[in-house]
Amino acid sequence: MASKYKFYSNLMSQPCRSLQIVMNLAKIPFETVTIALGDHAKDSFAKEVNSLCTIPCINDGGFKLAESIAILRYLATKSSLIIRWYPTGARMRARVDEYLEWHHLNIRAPCTGYFRKSWLEPRNTKQPPNQTTLDSLMGQVNRSLDFLENIWLAEGDFLIGSDVSVADIWAICEIEQLFLTPLDPTEGRPKLKAWMERVRRDTNPFYDEAHYTLWSVRDKSGQRSQL
Amino acid sequence: MASKYKFYSNLMSQPCRSLQIVMNLAKIPFETVTIALGDHAKDSFAKEVNSLCTIPCINDGGFKLAESIAILRYLATKSSLIIRWYPTGARMRARVDEYLEWHHLNIRAPCTGYFRKSWLEPRNTKQPPNQTTLDSLMGQVNRSLDFLENIWLAEGDFLIGSDVSVADIWAICEIEQLFLTPLDPTEGRPKLKAWMERVRRDTNPFYDEAHYTLWSVRDKSGQRSQL
Repeated sequence: MASKYKFYSNLMSQPCRSLQIVMNLAKIPFETVTIALGDHAKDSFAKEVNSLCTIPCINDGGFKLAESIAILRYLATKSSLIIRWYPTGARMRARVDEYLEWHHLNIRAPCTGYFRKSWLEPRNTKQPPNQTTLDSLMGQVNRSLDFLENIWLAEGDFLIGSDVSVADIWAICEIEQLFLTPLDPTEGRPKLKAWMERVRRDTNPFYDEAHYTLWSVRDKSGQRSQL
Repeated sequence: MASKYKFYSNLMSQPCRSLQIVMNLAKIPFETVTIALGDHAKDSFAKEVNSLCTIPCINDGGFKLAESIAILRYLATKSSLIIRWYPTGARMRARVDEYLEWHHLNIRAPCTGYFRKSWLEPRNTKQPPNQTTLDSLMGQVNRSLDFLENIWLAEGDFLIGSDVSVADIWAICEIEQLFLTPLDPTEGRPKLKAWMERVRRDTNPFYDEAHYTLWSVRDKSGQRSQL
């Protein structure tokens, strides 16, 4: 039996959830080490686990690797089972890679930025968010979600091709985080809404399993539309 | 002879320069179509060239692809010559990929953001930059450059391994852009300074060729430290 990867993770983190879903789908053996949020910025974490001070990261028999998409690619060189969600044909792979690159500055950055400023920081600091910053971030999020609705989902059921891929999984985990904020990403975006349902359906039970923690926090906070 | 890729580019763009340098190093045949800055946001560009409205992008006999790093990976599946700068061994490739993923939010985003706010926008709008925004961006750039100095360049001559790789090339093209701004990235960072000299040396004459336009603009503006 293959030895298990050590997977340093916290399910409040979007890329941790993405990676966990894919590893579960592809039946990759892993052992989760849950890292309390904030602990990944500590010196001990930098020294012992990941000098970049980020999660997710893995340890494969001494080989330490960070960055969720780099980890995905590394796992794909070691487990052919991932290919179903990360196709190998040059053009299909290029299309998925094109999304995964576009993702960073167009989905990850604005969605995370808006989540932090509208939800996380006000709770940590007990101060209301700066409205100008919030409006600017909300504009960026809406522009990016419109790109998903009008460009990426213009013709198909998924971001790339006719089946769910890692592109969909990395995207949806960022978008799901927005349901804690005042912004409903699916409002006025019927394609995005139907796509989210399809991706959840085709990645379950692992999608729900990865999101229980987030949904529990959302339901407890109950302040989605009050900020 | 292999047919040439159409390469839509503008040498004021950092990822356009990175891709051009690698294609030249690996002797990949390409034909440049220079896109005036701003034209890539036009409807005609979206319809005919790239619906994501970004450069660089390529056209390979009808197959259109955007995002510089996705293009790099696609070219690497078609030309084995790239392997020297984008190694194939699982762990070395993973290390380069780890940087290329980290790059987006830690080097690309803050360096481009600071360049735009400190140099580009004041010239376009004739208005001085907002100092609070500028200070925040400068803080982010300095933190990221310190990561390069203290983590990525802690032990070796290059970001990954003992030779120049695409990780160095994508990084340096963002950092070179900073010399148009008031921030000297090499100040107090001797490892970064020596690394920049090595990367330029090992990628020339293509490094200088890709940067003539930028350096010409820098020399003409002559306002680096006056903002």
